[in-house]
Amino acid sequence: MRFSINWAKRLPILGWLPHYSVGKLQRDFIAGLTVGLMVIPQGLAYASIAELPPQYGLYSSFMGGFIYCFLGSSKDITQGPTAIMSLMVAMHSADFHSKQSSVNYAIALSFFCGIIWLLMGLFSLGFIVQIMPLPVISGFTSAAAITIGVGQIKHLLGLSNIPREFFPCIIKIFTKIAGTNVWDLTLGLICIFLLELLRYMRPVELPAHYYDSPPTRVQKVSRKFLWILCTARNAIIVFATALVALAYHEKGLTPFTLTGKVEEGLPDFQFPSLKTQDKNTTVTTLDMISDIGSGFIVIPIIGFVENIVIAQAFARKNHYEVDATQELISLGVGNIATSFFSGYPITGSFSRTAVNDMSGAATQMGGVFTGSVVLLALSVFTPFFKYIPKASLSSIIIKAVLRMVDFRIVKRMWQTNKIDLVPFFVTFFSCFYELDIGILCGVLIAMVVFLYRRLVPKIEILGEINGRYHFKLHGGVTYVGIEYLTSKVREKALVNNKSVVIFLECSTMFECDFTVTEGLVQLYHECGDRDTKLIFCDVRKDVKEMLLNAGLPTELFKSDLPEDLSGLLNTPM
Amino acid sequence: MRFSINWAKRLPILGWLPHYSVGKLQRDFIAGLTVGLMVIPQGLAYASIAELPPQYGLYSSFMGGFIYCFLGSSKDITQGPTAIMSLMVAMHSADFHSKQSSVNYAIALSFFCGIIWLLMGLFSLGFIVQIMPLPVISGFTSAAAITIGVGQIKHLLGLSNIPREFFPCIIKIFTKIAGTNVWDLTLGLICIFLLELLRYMRPVELPAHYYDSPPTRVQKVSRKFLWILCTARNAIIVFATALVALAYHEKGLTPFTLTGKVEEGLPDFQFPSLKTQDKNTTVTTLDMISDIGSGFIVIPIIGFVENIVIAQAFARKNHYEVDATQELISLGVGNIATSFFSGYPITGSFSRTAVNDMSGAATQMGGVFTGSVVLLALSVFTPFFKYIPKASLSSIIIKAVLRMVDFRIVKRMWQTNKIDLVPFFVTFFSCFYELDIGILCGVLIAMVVFLYRRLVPKIEILGEINGRYHFKLHGGVTYVGIEYLTSKVREKALVNNKSVVIFLECSTMFECDFTVTEGLVQLYHECGDRDTKLIFCDVRKDVKEMLLNAGLPTELFKSDLPEDLSGLLNTPM
Repeated sequence: MRFSINWAKRLPILGWLPHYSVGKLQRDFIAGLTVGLMVIPQGLAYASIAELPPQYGLYSSFMGGFIYCFLGSSKDITQGPTAIMSLMVAMHSADFHSKQSSVNYAIALSFFCGIIWLLMGLFSLGFIVQIMPLPVISGFTSAAAITIGVGQIKHLLGLSNIPREFFPCIIKIFTKIAGTNVWDLTLGLICIFLLELLRYMRPVELPAHYYDSPPTRVQKVSRKFLWILCTARNAIIVFATALVALAYHEKGLTPFTLTGKVEEGLPDFQFPSLKTQDKNTTVTTLDMISDIGSGFIVIPIIGFVENIVIAQAFARKNHYEVDATQELISLGVGNIATSFFSGYPITGSFSRTAVNDMSGAATQMGGVFTGSVVLLALSVFTPFFKYIPKASLSSIIIKAVLRMVDFRIVKRMWQTNKIDLVPFFVTFFSCFYELDIGILCGVLIAMVVFLYRRLVPKIEILGEINGRYHFKLHGGVTYVGIEYLTSKVREKALVNNKSVVIFLECSTMFECDFTVTEGLVQLYHECGDRDTKLIFCDVRKDVKEMLLNAGLPTELFKSDLPEDLSGLLNTPM
Repeated sequence: MRFSINWAKRLPILGWLPHYSVGKLQRDFIAGLTVGLMVIPQGLAYASIAELPPQYGLYSSFMGGFIYCFLGSSKDITQGPTAIMSLMVAMHSADFHSKQSSVNYAIALSFFCGIIWLLMGLFSLGFIVQIMPLPVISGFTSAAAITIGVGQIKHLLGLSNIPREFFPCIIKIFTKIAGTNVWDLTLGLICIFLLELLRYMRPVELPAHYYDSPPTRVQKVSRKFLWILCTARNAIIVFATALVALAYHEKGLTPFTLTGKVEEGLPDFQFPSLKTQDKNTTVTTLDMISDIGSGFIVIPIIGFVENIVIAQAFARKNHYEVDATQELISLGVGNIATSFFSGYPITGSFSRTAVNDMSGAATQMGGVFTGSVVLLALSVFTPFFKYIPKASLSSIIIKAVLRMVDFRIVKRMWQTNKIDLVPFFVTFFSCFYELDIGILCGVLIAMVVFLYRRLVPKIEILGEINGRYHFKLHGGVTYVGIEYLTSKVREKALVNNKSVVIFLECSTMFECDFTVTEGLVQLYHECGDRDTKLIFCDVRKDVKEMLLNAGLPTELFKSDLPEDLSGLLNTPM
């Protein structure tokens, strides 16, 4: 463990700020503004996934950018509320009698998770993302996206009192479908259509040689305008539908289900309240911690995976390196800071990061502008937010999560490695029951599959000549496979109490664990009992050292090459 | 999956019964009797670990042998109550207001676990024992043994109202130590001393040439007598101390804490009651199942591990094969049958199996005699059992579990593979908090360690010649290591946008999972973006097929041998 701090690594701003320029400032300003226009409607919408009042989505949207500017190791990523994190928050904070309890839980969650991320960073536990199996992450993401999408249908239909859980939600929607608000449904469908249209229309910047002639200034400006229009489509849709609702309101009509009162102004800066009063029961900090339980494993891991996968994707695209430890630290500090401003857990957002990159972000400074836009919106526009129809926010969410459902991976797994479909489907289906349990089951099954494939190590039995048996190991043996290896040797060479010689060629054994050494030592003793010689050929130096330490005598090891070995096999002893 | 039943495998009795003889019957009779004399005091004692009335230990001691005679695949193993299973039972059934609830839970546990074992057997899930890491099993066994031993100290001191949990138990013993019953303590210590003495005195059968002259008939008989005396030492101690207590009782004295009333006669045959009434609450079958929860994973796994480890050890010693699937089936049927006679979960017992082997058991028939001895004891001797002092039973338990604590393994792990100490100690210490949690934490940590060691695959960078980079993989790559591999390639060969050729030698890659193929395909696309060629050399057939299915074109694969490859490296293209 290193105890000296590498400041350039731990404060990435020290790396890029000295080279900052007006050009970069311009690019960051535009990118930050664009992302800001995106995060405002998303924040309001995601708060509804988290089952919190809308302003809490905005409260979670600014500190991430400010902190990331100092601590983040990727120039593209923008941290804030995301659909999946909001769903995870709802799972742990929604089921209380008072709204205030839910809010307190959500804020406490971002405080505690922040501490966990920070600790993971300090202990360099970033490798955890590597050991999360891809099929599990993929199954989880698709299931969560579908759960979120289905959860929004109630807003699209204008129904209320629909439970949050997947299956009860579907059942309740069907029983209540007669009460659909046609205005909401129509508005929602129009929004979805317009969002799709605007996404489709967004101009793609092609390399110069694709064009017959260089674009004129007018063409350039109009293309840029269209690009901004399409990129800010969420904000435009929300603004437009809110205007429509406001117009109806002026006439004394409220055909749409509206967002309702949004708390005005900026959140207070205060230490997150880590206890709450729900109806007549006092929930202490310890109660909260034990309530959240497995959430303290699952939320930090999922949040970190979301963040690092996005960071790595853009780092690869733009040729730079991200530092997993540093991302953990920025997530940790960002979440703790957010919890002081009444925000709920944040992480890297894929859609906003992509827009940030496309908008030409030069450095992490963009987050500061994004955060400022959110603060501005909070202090000025909150009175207007109450007119936003819920159906238009839902349409944004549905559009966003539909892209996260990926079933092409099923086909690819089928073609390459069918057994990986097992953890995928176990995760996918059990996530509909509960996300935490889905992830844990998925990881467990993936581990069993991983180990199951190591149960039968590849052993070539080269046959017997004059009481000499020759076994060749292909591709190593782990603790799960040692029983198979020794039982194979026993079965072939130790059956009849004859005294024989056993050669075990181990050139492909690159490592060795304790169970393996124990198994080989036991095999050696069994051979000794039968006056049989066990010879290890071509053992790598580190493995040999382990086996010697485990108590095998040096004379068992022959460093002969396979040619030599077959010679040994043919000469009588 | 096979749907035809291999009767010889599924009913092992069909294999040995046709060759049965009077000689074998004699041997089985003696062995069965000896084990029977052992299981009676053990059953009474282990019931106290399970915190059940003593007769339930005997109720659990006979059906196992009867069933195993038909279904068991090892001639030596004897199934019945064991110290560890009794502790696991106590964990799930002890904390109720009424004793009847505890009893119902314990019986239901053996019914449900029986079903789980049977299902595991039918689905051939015997491999689960292989994927249980040895350090976890070892840490668990030592911690459980210490917990059991410490839990018996209260009986040795004659204290009552001591909690079951490890730490509260120790604390309470210290606060109550002034109330020690000196009679109990003295008796207990004498019993421990005598048990140790008798164990030490047991004659060992040496090969004939160790003796100066062949033993006389008197020597032979006296040695045999001594052997039986020493082997039945538990029964003798229990019988003798009960006689002493009875003598005191006749004089109107009760200096020792006695076992107390033992229900007379045989248990009724009845369907296990899967619900119960605890104080004023009704516990339904579903409540029971959700109460037991993780116990349904941990108890069947621990029970099976205990059983199969013992079975394999004696199979190795006596040169026969045990069938993991068949052991599961016998455990399943044995436990279900036991639950119909009010017994609690049973599994293979190490101490009794060892004695069975030493007594010369010829076949599984011994279990029938053992069971008959227990039935005889139940129907005749129960009135006498109430005089057995608790301290003498505790001394038997303490002697039995002390041998299960094994810390020499720590030294061996330290010498061979230090990282395996992490799961060992995590399991060991967390088991004192709760056994279930200890096992689960241990397995989790062992998995993380297992994967952590695969995080950095061994890649040899053979260097660059004329824009050709040569990487050589040593020992395969799994999903946890692919990120390291591709990032290493990226870092070395894809940094500057030059068009280069990358050779990746994969001769030691014996398998490939979905995440690996995805990573390599992505690397291939990245290389394509940079006009760089990625060549895979010496890829094994099955891995190549997977990569082709994943979408890599055939021309990327060169089946050249390493010699050829270095030739490629040296010739200009």
